[in-house]
Amino acid sequence: MDINSQENSIINTKLDQMLQSTLPALGIDLGGTKISCGLVSNYKLVSEPKQYKTPKGSANILDQLYKIIEEYKAKNLIAGVGVATAGIVDTTSGTVIDSTFNLPGWAGTNIKQYLEPKTMLPIHVENDANAAAYGEFKSKFQNHNLSTIVVTLGTGIGGGIILNGQIFHGENYAAGEIGHLKISFENKRLCTCGHFDCWEAYGSGPGLLKTTKELLSEVNSSQSVLYENINDLSTSHIIQAIENNDFLAKKAFDLWHHHVSIGLVTIAQILNPRTFIISGGMSPFVNYTLLQEMVIDKALAKVAQNLEIHQSRLGIHAGIIGAGQIALDAIILPKNY
Amino acid sequence: MDINSQENSIINTKLDQMLQSTLPALGIDLGGTKISCGLVSNYKLVSEPKQYKTPKGSANILDQLYKIIEEYKAKNLIAGVGVATAGIVDTTSGTVIDSTFNLPGWAGTNIKQYLEPKTMLPIHVENDANAAAYGEFKSKFQNHNLSTIVVTLGTGIGGGIILNGQIFHGENYAAGEIGHLKISFENKRLCTCGHFDCWEAYGSGPGLLKTTKELLSEVNSSQSVLYENINDLSTSHIIQAIENNDFLAKKAFDLWHHHVSIGLVTIAQILNPRTFIISGGMSPFVNYTLLQEMVIDKALAKVAQNLEIHQSRLGIHAGIIGAGQIALDAIILPKNY
Repeated sequence: MDINSQENSIINTKLDQMLQSTLPALGIDLGGTKISCGLVSNYKLVSEPKQYKTPKGSANILDQLYKIIEEYKAKNLIAGVGVATAGIVDTTSGTVIDSTFNLPGWAGTNIKQYLEPKTMLPIHVENDANAAAYGEFKSKFQNHNLSTIVVTLGTGIGGGIILNGQIFHGENYAAGEIGHLKISFENKRLCTCGHFDCWEAYGSGPGLLKTTKELLSEVNSSQSVLYENINDLSTSHIIQAIENNDFLAKKAFDLWHHHVSIGLVTIAQILNPRTFIISGGMSPFVNYTLLQEMVIDKALAKVAQNLEIHQSRLGIHAGIIGAGQIALDAIILPKNY
Repeated sequence: MDINSQENSIINTKLDQMLQSTLPALGIDLGGTKISCGLVSNYKLVSEPKQYKTPKGSANILDQLYKIIEEYKAKNLIAGVGVATAGIVDTTSGTVIDSTFNLPGWAGTNIKQYLEPKTMLPIHVENDANAAAYGEFKSKFQNHNLSTIVVTLGTGIGGGIILNGQIFHGENYAAGEIGHLKISFENKRLCTCGHFDCWEAYGSGPGLLKTTKELLSEVNSSQSVLYENINDLSTSHIIQAIENNDFLAKKAFDLWHHHVSIGLVTIAQILNPRTFIISGGMSPFVNYTLLQEMVIDKALAKVAQNLEIHQSRLGIHAGIIGAGQIALDAIILPKNY
């Protein structure tokens, strides 16, 4: 190839990139019961998200994903597709290398290899927690190369690790299992993973309930209104009891914040991130001022400096937005990882 | 610039790079009492390392660094210089942004800005723990983009985080404070940093001695030979007592491995590294088989898969080698961080 035709080829490639970068991408969030999707551009949804039922079995799921993409293609010009799925994902090959209970038979499926030749579109596959973290990060910071940890506080603790603006995957694509960092060494409380003293066993919703029940076992029934609900205790009961000045509910809630803060401090000392973004079902119950104080109080000064803790702003659409944005960024941004 | 002269310029740059990449770099490890240095090529020392006394005061240290570089330049062709220093380092500007007790007045010094125009060589400045970690990593894995955490077990716990083959710095260049991750939430043992329950308070050399003394306080003097040395207890006493089948020494030693394993598991669940490399004064005392079993037993299967724990192989020269290799890699490798 001579210099001129090389130059032309570079110019054509750049024009292609410019055109593609003005188009939206399709973001798909594949869950155990439903598939949610929508068009994504500039770090946000640009079409009303749609939902489909997740069919049973690997072949049927792939076929459904294909039909969804073709449906969008028929009505829109799209730059590419991002698929967020449960399970561990080899993002280079686009394969689900380990599955979850939610999607039996899904492990081993090469989503990219199946969909790319049929749809003629670039397909990017990512773990759903990582995609949601990327969505939260991009929505807040766009292309700034910051480091942010997204922490999902719900029935468990999950998350995604964004380092210098990119998802960090680790050696076996298994990084970000932050719910299973240890906050004690004394084999005190068993986690659902089968090991003791994981952060999740204390900092999740069920963790808060367990802590509350332990406290209740140390007082008598006249000392807390929560005794009435001891058999069907929920976070709402605790919040309501706090509003009624119940000392035990307050104590449990403070302890829960303390437990959450310990995990955040540990991550902060290791990775010195700029921000934590808290999402998940428990995130509306967090007292962010209290939590930030607790974290900054326990972290080294240079780690605490500028460290911020925010609540998620995307909610259930984080996965769609993140998946779509991954497809968009693959066109316009260089890939470090 | 027309295409031809642009092409020539590219060719000249590439020739420069090829020439430079065959030259060694000078690695300098600046400590509170001495400056160690040597020529580095292909991830190892290629000259006998030399030592100089660290002078007092920022201006004198800079002058001494300049003299050392000129001394090497007079006898060798060198590609660049890497300086490993205590304190937090802004590696982009080459400035020490926060200092340590060891080097009073050193904070605020822009090492790169001072040395580059005087020596006419590219100067790279890095925190000493990070440089040592990079040296250990490169010596073992060369240019493989693996993730490795170097853990220094000594009078404290420090370390360096290598992600995808590169040093990870964090938002304020303060990442890697792994000694201050939390292994308990119960305010049990105070750390030298002023906070409770840091990993360092248990997993360091002094941590082992503290654990041993706590155990000794629960038995009587006939139950352990370590009672004889309770006022000047050292790691060697414990090792010797184990050889004499002292049950308490064995118990303390196992507990220390347990404490060390908790921190490693926490880091592993978050970052899913390929390898831990253990260095520092306590590293020769570690039972690596036991430690690896403890870590794999407590980590999630997908995180434990292929995870290895090795002892450091560079010892005290890791900082020189890492600093020199940083200077070499800046010439030939693209920089992601």
